[in-house]
Amino acid sequence: MLVLALPGGEPLAAGLASQLRCDCASLQLHRFPDGETGVRIDVAVKGRCVVLAGSLDQPDGKTLPLIFAADAARELGALQVGLVAPYLAYMRQDKRFKPGEALSSRSYARLLSASLDFLVTVDPHLHRIHSLVEIYPIRTRVVAAAPLIARWLRSHVEAPWLIGPDRESEQWVAEVAGLAGAPWTVLAKTRRGDRDVGIRLASRERWPDRTPVLLDDIISTGHTMLAATQLLKRTGLGAPLCIGVHALFDAEAQQQLLEAGATRVLSCDTITHPSNAIRMAPLLARAVRELNADDKESRK
Amino acid sequence: MLVLALPGGEPLAAGLASQLRCDCASLQLHRFPDGETGVRIDVAVKGRCVVLAGSLDQPDGKTLPLIFAADAARELGALQVGLVAPYLAYMRQDKRFKPGEALSSRSYARLLSASLDFLVTVDPHLHRIHSLVEIYPIRTRVVAAAPLIARWLRSHVEAPWLIGPDRESEQWVAEVAGLAGAPWTVLAKTRRGDRDVGIRLASRERWPDRTPVLLDDIISTGHTMLAATQLLKRTGLGAPLCIGVHALFDAEAQQQLLEAGATRVLSCDTITHPSNAIRMAPLLARAVRELNADDKESRK
Repeated sequence: MLVLALPGGEPLAAGLASQLRCDCASLQLHRFPDGETGVRIDVAVKGRCVVLAGSLDQPDGKTLPLIFAADAARELGALQVGLVAPYLAYMRQDKRFKPGEALSSRSYARLLSASLDFLVTVDPHLHRIHSLVEIYPIRTRVVAAAPLIARWLRSHVEAPWLIGPDRESEQWVAEVAGLAGAPWTVLAKTRRGDRDVGIRLASRERWPDRTPVLLDDIISTGHTMLAATQLLKRTGLGAPLCIGVHALFDAEAQQQLLEAGATRVLSCDTITHPSNAIRMAPLLARAVRELNADDKESRK
Repeated sequence: MLVLALPGGEPLAAGLASQLRCDCASLQLHRFPDGETGVRIDVAVKGRCVVLAGSLDQPDGKTLPLIFAADAARELGALQVGLVAPYLAYMRQDKRFKPGEALSSRSYARLLSASLDFLVTVDPHLHRIHSLVEIYPIRTRVVAAAPLIARWLRSHVEAPWLIGPDRESEQWVAEVAGLAGAPWTVLAKTRRGDRDVGIRLASRERWPDRTPVLLDDIISTGHTMLAATQLLKRTGLGAPLCIGVHALFDAEAQQQLLEAGATRVLSCDTITHPSNAIRMAPLLARAVRELNADDKESRK
């Protein structure tokens, strides 16, 4: 096996290779003056299972190099070509919210599936699409962050009260709460634009003696977390701890959360970010091993 | 028929729609805070042939929106989905110059072909690949710029001497020269890097009484044209006119050419650029009409 780091995926690739006890190298990229990207694999791939490693945040510039690399690895004799993308892009546009909108989640899944044998990711944003299998015909493994977040909470927060920012988060927040042995609730969110959200308490449930823990799968601009943090402070429910699986937000948004009263902001390391506190590499490596074993099984 | 402008393709789309006497609209793009691109077609496409229009210079950011739009048009009931890309990207990486390099020309052709029914382009950079058909399985039409450049020369330059900057340009320069009724030669180029080229006169042929016209299919950084212009000045062969089909170079490079002694720098309008002087829309529209007629023929 060989782990090949996509641009920005070097820490992930090193973590995976260490868990899988295999070689690790970086994809060589060259930006031509006309804006095209040259891709080169400068290690031997013949007869090996090649695992491309990197998150797909800011996907538009990363996707062609990824596809070129996957195709090249196969042409150069790789037995299998897989992708470990702890954050998977284009999972949110899964219906036409307005007429004429492109269903990019399906198009993107078709693009990746045409060049890959398998895909491992962490908690993809599944909402109207209930399982990756619906849109990705290749072998996939979804690594769940919930058990790791619950374990972190059990060892770091004495009496947590888990709070999801909206109805969409209900099932997932309930799962983390169950594993952490804590009560939970969800807030009611109204989205008026990318950066304009309204949030209110939807139930009368209150746990004033517990530490509120705001949980979301993706922290994007941070506006939802910010509105929720402000609501908790305003209603006297205390200073929350903010946890996201995928940290897409910038340093300024993190600062705003802390200024609004969050005691700490933390995330899983699916996207390299200052808030990273929960390490996914062991579970990602296990998923790769399982997929490889599945493949050997099916070839018997 | 409906022409849909890709980002930056608005002038091309308007020119095509005017020639084809059909509607024209722009693709609606939305950049989400996480770097994903939302694509929307806000006109009816059902039962129509949809022609996406835009050049693929700086391709990495343009390709996903293009594919999402093509897939959406088809899902929304378009009869056919084609692309008019006067400049086609990723035609240069057609062999492994170093071991392990990706053959992006083939990967890219596969990506576009999976979402399109037809493709029209102008003089793609064909070198080791001799025809688009070798890598694009869909219906394609290549519009030749040579006749239009020759026509321009006949009406603007009394006695031209056509000069190609390297051996690769030989066949093409000979064709333009034949159509323009002018003598021609090619120079010898040594490339030491993206922006480092050496150029020398390869033959003893001289036409001191004629206007030297430097011709290339792509002017990328402008370094090749610049080295050729300096060579002509240094050897007393006169101030050249520089013509490129595809103008990928920036305003600074154009200025450098003029400062080095070029009398004028001009290009076909395959990429919107201040040097554009030769209009391709009529021939592009004719190619679209022919492809449509072909399709009706094959369905009979």
